[in-house]
Amino acid sequence: MELSEIYAPVQADLEAVEKRLKEVSNVDFPHLAELLDYSLQSTGKRIRPVLVLISGKFYDYDEDKLLSMATAAEIMHIATLVHDDAIDKSSVRRGRATVNAVWSDEKAVLLGDYLFAEAGAMTASTNNLRAIKLFAVTLKTISRGELDQSYYAYNLEQSRDQYFKRIACKTAALFSMSTESGAAMSKAPEESIQALIKYAYNLGVAFQIVDDILDFNGTETELGKPAGSDLGQGTITLPSLMLMERYPKDNPLRKLTDDNNRQKAIKQAMEMVRNSTIIQDCQQVALDYCNVAKETLEILPNKPGCRLLAELADYVTHRRK
Amino acid sequence: MELSEIYAPVQADLEAVEKRLKEVSNVDFPHLAELLDYSLQSTGKRIRPVLVLISGKFYDYDEDKLLSMATAAEIMHIATLVHDDAIDKSSVRRGRATVNAVWSDEKAVLLGDYLFAEAGAMTASTNNLRAIKLFAVTLKTISRGELDQSYYAYNLEQSRDQYFKRIACKTAALFSMSTESGAAMSKAPEESIQALIKYAYNLGVAFQIVDDILDFNGTETELGKPAGSDLGQGTITLPSLMLMERYPKDNPLRKLTDDNNRQKAIKQAMEMVRNSTIIQDCQQVALDYCNVAKETLEILPNKPGCRLLAELADYVTHRRK
Repeated sequence: MELSEIYAPVQADLEAVEKRLKEVSNVDFPHLAELLDYSLQSTGKRIRPVLVLISGKFYDYDEDKLLSMATAAEIMHIATLVHDDAIDKSSVRRGRATVNAVWSDEKAVLLGDYLFAEAGAMTASTNNLRAIKLFAVTLKTISRGELDQSYYAYNLEQSRDQYFKRIACKTAALFSMSTESGAAMSKAPEESIQALIKYAYNLGVAFQIVDDILDFNGTETELGKPAGSDLGQGTITLPSLMLMERYPKDNPLRKLTDDNNRQKAIKQAMEMVRNSTIIQDCQQVALDYCNVAKETLEILPNKPGCRLLAELADYVTHRRK
Repeated sequence: MELSEIYAPVQADLEAVEKRLKEVSNVDFPHLAELLDYSLQSTGKRIRPVLVLISGKFYDYDEDKLLSMATAAEIMHIATLVHDDAIDKSSVRRGRATVNAVWSDEKAVLLGDYLFAEAGAMTASTNNLRAIKLFAVTLKTISRGELDQSYYAYNLEQSRDQYFKRIACKTAALFSMSTESGAAMSKAPEESIQALIKYAYNLGVAFQIVDDILDFNGTETELGKPAGSDLGQGTITLPSLMLMERYPKDNPLRKLTDDNNRQKAIKQAMEMVRNSTIIQDCQQVALDYCNVAKETLEILPNKPGCRLLAELADYVTHRRK
C-alpha cells in the first residue's frame, strides 16, 4: 500500500500542516527565511504529524491546537536531522543537498536551534502542559540517544540491548511524543493514551530497524543518500551486531577504524550481510515490533484512525525507502 | 563594587541555583554526566539567574518555581555558549578549555541540544505559560541574532543600527526573558513587568557593548580568552564600526578577509582603537544604556532588589572582565 493511500483520511489535515510549515518561513530576515524554506520543504514522510493527528482524534479535540502540535512534531524532527547532518558531515539527504552542504555547519547548527525553538513555541501555543513537558523531555531523550551513538561509534563490543535502548531514545521517543501529545490534548482516558504510547514506541523501533536494514540493502535512489552511510560514520546497527555475533573473529567490521581499508571493509561487510540471512532476521525483529504495535490498538475505539495506524505499521515495516 | 558584594542579598538563593545546576548532572549515562558537570561548573557571573530571582521577589512568589526558572535561564545561557564555541572553533572560554576543544564539535552540538531541552523542561516545571512561551520565543530570537552575526561576518558596510538590533537579539533578549519570567511568575502588575523588561533590555545592550569593548582592550587574564577574538571571527562590533566611520578608506579592517594579513590587520585595528577615543566613546554609549536601565527601576516598589539591580547595572558597565 502506498503512503498516500494510507494517509487519504488525513489528507486535508496534512495539507493544513504543510501550510503551517510554509508559514514558519514568513520572517523579516531573508537569509533565515531561505534556510527555513529549504529545510521545511515537503520531502519527508510526515509520519510524526500523522501520529499526532490520528491520536488526537479518537476523542474530543481542538482542530487548531492539534494542527499546531502536529506541525511542532515535524519541525522538531527536521531540527534533529539538520543537526545530525551537520555533525555527520552528510552532504545528501532525501536526494537533496543538506543545509550544512549548501551553506555551512555553522548555519546548520543555528538553524537547528531556531527550529527547536519554533517547535517549542508551537507546542507551547497549545497551552497543554502535558504536551509541553513531554516536548522538553523528548528533546533530552533524543540528544541522549545521539550522544550514546556518538560515544559508541566504531565500538563492536556493544550489545543488542544497548542498540535497542539507543533507537528507543533517538527515534521511538519522538514517535511516542507524537501520539501521547495528540491523545493528551483530546482528553483521552489514560488507558488509551498508554496504548498509543506503546503503539508508537513499537512503531518507532520497527521504523529504525528497517532504516538500519535499508542502509545495507537499499539503493541510492531508494534511500536518497548513499547506502552504507551508517558504517561510514561508525554507527553499529542491528545488521552489524548480527554479523559480529556470527563472525566474532575474522570480521571486516574490525577494520572500520583503519583509514586505509575502511571503504573496502564497509563493502565487504555489506556483501556479507546481504549474502546471509541477516536481512531476513532483522526484518523478522522489525515485524515482531510491528505486530506488538498493532495489537496495542485493540483497546482503542473502533474508528477509522485505528485502521490507518495499523496500515502505517505495516507500511513502515515493509517499506523500501 | 565586587559582584559578590552586590549579590549578597541573594547569596542563599544563588547557592540553591548552584545545587540545582549540579543535580542536572545526575543522569545514569556517565559520558553525558561528565559533559554536563564540566559545562555547568560555576565559572560564569550568574547574572541571568540573579535577574530572575530579583524580578520575582517584588511581589508574591513561589520560591521553588522561581529557583527552577533562575536555573533554566542559566542553563539556556550555557547552552548558547556551548554551541557558539563549537561554531567559532573557540578553544578557551573563561580560562578553561571549551567542550568542543576537550571532546569534539559533535559532542558540543548534542550537549547544547540537551541543555536547551533541560532548560525547557525546568521552565515547563514552573507551569507558567507566559514564562514557557517566552522561553521558546527567546531561543528563536537568540538563534536569529547569531545567524545575523554569521551572515554579516567580515561585512564592513553594516550600520550601527544593525549592530544594536543584533546584540538586542543575541544578548538582551535573554536578559529580558529573565526579568519578565521572574516578574510574571510573581503576579507582578503589567506596568512593573514592562519596567523590568526595559531595564533588562538596556542592561543587556550595555553588557554586550562592554563585552565588545573588552575584546579590544582587555587582557587574556581578565577575559579568560585571547583578546581580538571577535575580529578573528570577522564579527564587526561597535568599536570596529566607529573605526570604519573615522577611517572609511585606508582601514586595516579592510584586510580582515586577506588570509596572509589577517593577524597583522587585527593587531593594527586593535592598536588604532586603543589609541583613539573610541573606547571612551563606546563606554559612553554603554553608560547611556546603563542610565536608562536604572531610570526604569523608579516605578518599582522600593525593595532591596531595586538597589541590587542598580548596582548590577553599574557593575556591568564598568567591569573589566
